[in-house]
Amino acid sequence: MEHKSVIIIGGGMSGIKTAIDLFHGGVEDTLILEARSRLGGRILSKESPSNNGVVYDLGASWFHDGLKNPLFEKSKKLGNIDYYFDDGKSAFYSATEDGIVESWKFDAVVDEFYTYSALTYESDPDKQDMSIKDMWKEYSSQFNDRLNENQRKHAPAVIRMWTELWLGESWDQLSAKLSLERNSMHHLGRNIFIKSGYTKVLENELNELPKSYRKASIKLEAQVKKIDFSDPKRIKLQLSNGGKEYSCDYLVVTVPQTVLAITEKDDPQYIEWTPKVPTPISELIKDLKFSSLGKVVLEFDECFWPKDFDRFYALTTNFPKVDVNDNGCSETIIEAWDFPALFLNFQAIHNVPALVILTQRPLSGYIEELLQRGHSDKVWHIYKPILEKIAKNSQIPAPTNILCSPWNGEKYSRGSYGTSLVGAEDSAAIVEKFQQGFQNRIRFAGTETMGDTSSGCVHGAWYSGQREAKAILKSMSSGEKEVLAESR
Amino acid sequence: MEHKSVIIIGGGMSGIKTAIDLFHGGVEDTLILEARSRLGGRILSKESPSNNGVVYDLGASWFHDGLKNPLFEKSKKLGNIDYYFDDGKSAFYSATEDGIVESWKFDAVVDEFYTYSALTYESDPDKQDMSIKDMWKEYSSQFNDRLNENQRKHAPAVIRMWTELWLGESWDQLSAKLSLERNSMHHLGRNIFIKSGYTKVLENELNELPKSYRKASIKLEAQVKKIDFSDPKRIKLQLSNGGKEYSCDYLVVTVPQTVLAITEKDDPQYIEWTPKVPTPISELIKDLKFSSLGKVVLEFDECFWPKDFDRFYALTTNFPKVDVNDNGCSETIIEAWDFPALFLNFQAIHNVPALVILTQRPLSGYIEELLQRGHSDKVWHIYKPILEKIAKNSQIPAPTNILCSPWNGEKYSRGSYGTSLVGAEDSAAIVEKFQQGFQNRIRFAGTETMGDTSSGCVHGAWYSGQREAKAILKSMSSGEKEVLAESR
Repeated sequence: MEHKSVIIIGGGMSGIKTAIDLFHGGVEDTLILEARSRLGGRILSKESPSNNGVVYDLGASWFHDGLKNPLFEKSKKLGNIDYYFDDGKSAFYSATEDGIVESWKFDAVVDEFYTYSALTYESDPDKQDMSIKDMWKEYSSQFNDRLNENQRKHAPAVIRMWTELWLGESWDQLSAKLSLERNSMHHLGRNIFIKSGYTKVLENELNELPKSYRKASIKLEAQVKKIDFSDPKRIKLQLSNGGKEYSCDYLVVTVPQTVLAITEKDDPQYIEWTPKVPTPISELIKDLKFSSLGKVVLEFDECFWPKDFDRFYALTTNFPKVDVNDNGCSETIIEAWDFPALFLNFQAIHNVPALVILTQRPLSGYIEELLQRGHSDKVWHIYKPILEKIAKNSQIPAPTNILCSPWNGEKYSRGSYGTSLVGAEDSAAIVEKFQQGFQNRIRFAGTETMGDTSSGCVHGAWYSGQREAKAILKSMSSGEKEVLAESR
Repeated sequence: MEHKSVIIIGGGMSGIKTAIDLFHGGVEDTLILEARSRLGGRILSKESPSNNGVVYDLGASWFHDGLKNPLFEKSKKLGNIDYYFDDGKSAFYSATEDGIVESWKFDAVVDEFYTYSALTYESDPDKQDMSIKDMWKEYSSQFNDRLNENQRKHAPAVIRMWTELWLGESWDQLSAKLSLERNSMHHLGRNIFIKSGYTKVLENELNELPKSYRKASIKLEAQVKKIDFSDPKRIKLQLSNGGKEYSCDYLVVTVPQTVLAITEKDDPQYIEWTPKVPTPISELIKDLKFSSLGKVVLEFDECFWPKDFDRFYALTTNFPKVDVNDNGCSETIIEAWDFPALFLNFQAIHNVPALVILTQRPLSGYIEELLQRGHSDKVWHIYKPILEKIAKNSQIPAPTNILCSPWNGEKYSRGSYGTSLVGAEDSAAIVEKFQQGFQNRIRFAGTETMGDTSSGCVHGAWYSGQREAKAILKSMSSGEKEVLAESR
């Protein structure tokens, strides 16, 4: 049985950063086990089928926290990452209005609503959680006399758009208590769109490990099925299909919590722990849900929409009940304007006639299924009327290619990132326990283990790897056995 | 010597609210001594010379904290206050651009700048304070590579406009550390413009005191010159010009801190304390400066600007060094676009052809002096080019009337409200000491004694009166003498 000081499960940003910092801290006998046939996890850049040199990030796309993002700083120094501040010109459109919906029609009320929700739980922390949609109902009925027609119509549509396309989940599922805390939606500075593809940023990190390490110590298609920590001296792992066994002193688990939460033994991604994962982690993990922010790429032969806008926002006003199950239910026909949408204009970003549309659950799953079944016409059906309005033209051409992100159906992620649904535990408590790990030698990394604004972002994954490498190096230098004995 | 349980110095909102709550708490032998010949302090409504029924508030104008403002709630119940949410359509104008400056040209950078400043002092609380202007220099040089031409030009102009016209002071004087803390510029909900004049709101409060009280126990033109608390049994007061003497058990001082801070004995507003005001209040008070937010009213025969905009914002780009002393220096000719300006459109608010312009120090003092000397042409000289741009018309008529607020030259206020200049003590520490008062029997009220978002607002004054009445009632019911003995 091959033995390593540290084994890292997962070759996304957090696992790779853990290995880098361990390596440069003098711990070279580590191993990264990655279940997929590629590295990167929820970083997934796809080359454009028709536009040379253009990549679409179907996962992470921005450097967030632009004032304080170590990956952005590094990218600037290396000079090999193209980026773009996509916070220039933008416009809102609504099904029921011609032309642009100007932001003065709603912005004072959108701001006040966020303040109202935050104040509500600040002044009464025991008040029952409710969805953002229900919170809007509460606010708008209590303050109906101060809202004009524009505000009643557009403010909820804008709130729905921002919360759903920031958090990746339907506003009738999202926790108002946890999602709308003050500053919770504010990052530390601007967001920076990565033109080169996020995979390039990951490659920059990988280059901090020597080639020999990368060749020998990163295993793809190496899915861990069993984790046995019953032996206080070493942790044993076994890969799937009765595969290879490994042992290690320290284990860093960067597997998404959605996968850690699997309890059905027949599930191919189920991980068998011996003994069971101790409480409170085994309990808390049930509360950490992933949303499903998705992307739909529409490529065209030519640009028929305004070229100089970074973004277009589509506001929905009818809030229909759409019957879509978790995996998308193709019996339902989704119409344009059923869901809010955010269009990234690749004509402005890359000078190519393409649009990348952000989608949310349940729409993102529905679209994934449609495209798997070859129903790209039904996807175009959703976006065509919106683009006709943006282009002020009812004779627009159909797209030449439609791509979409895989996160709903992706067995190793099962969603896009952690989010707080109505009634969830405050993620701060969950994060704290994951940061502690257990027995000192079993540790957790990954962006969802961060408790600050970096949570859910790639630099959050990076920070978590940095944190775990540091903790392990400290534990090693202070005398592993004593610490282990103490923690049991 | 007339004796009262409680004497309140100052008949503004805080003093009146103190008297109301004492009265309804059973303490009826109180007295309000007001130095001016009118009540209201920094509430000052003037009737329009030409538009019947229209009033201009030269002091407080809005209900702030619209989600949580007790005076707004009361006004809605009474139904006798007209109000208007003036956060609808608005537009930015710049000296160097034709037409409206759209907000996407600067807003991402303005937001990021505020975050940058707050983060700077969060991560290094010991970093030396600097002005908002210098903080912009620091930010824009550090992040020059991410700013485009629009952002470099307009973002500092917008930052200057918002901070100066919110805080009433020049951005090269304002503390970045204390003025730009996170949430410090965010009120709890929307701001509500009072159409009826704030004096009506004050009258609603006064009506909570019986007529007999108001007639007998509110003295106008009663300027307190001497406060003698050397006798532990009673506090003695004497009015100016060797005037009447009073004694009381409790004293509530609502005099603006600018007046309390006067140390020159020859100053007509100097108050002689015997013994001296103890530290730390006597020391802290030197740090509490008042800014001077002012208003200029321009009345016209007809409206020549867009009728449906609530506000116009004038951005300045040249940042000249204007040599204006504290009282305004009429040797200097101030040009249009030397200072940012905010125009409230009374055509939208009141359907009358008038504009109310917010001004800041040093401009507000300069304009006061100009109008006192009859130079209304020089005031029009400042605003005419801006209005020509807004009206898209170089043949606009001159105003028929120009009025302005009196706060710079107003001997009993000496400014508009408390603000934090570069290097000031954190006002939280100052506020805490004022809320404690001393010897239990000498207490302070007034909006600057509030430490939350109500500070500087009328409802803050109201809260402070509520607080002091409650404290005195509690002290009385718990046995005054014991408490006094204990506090010495």
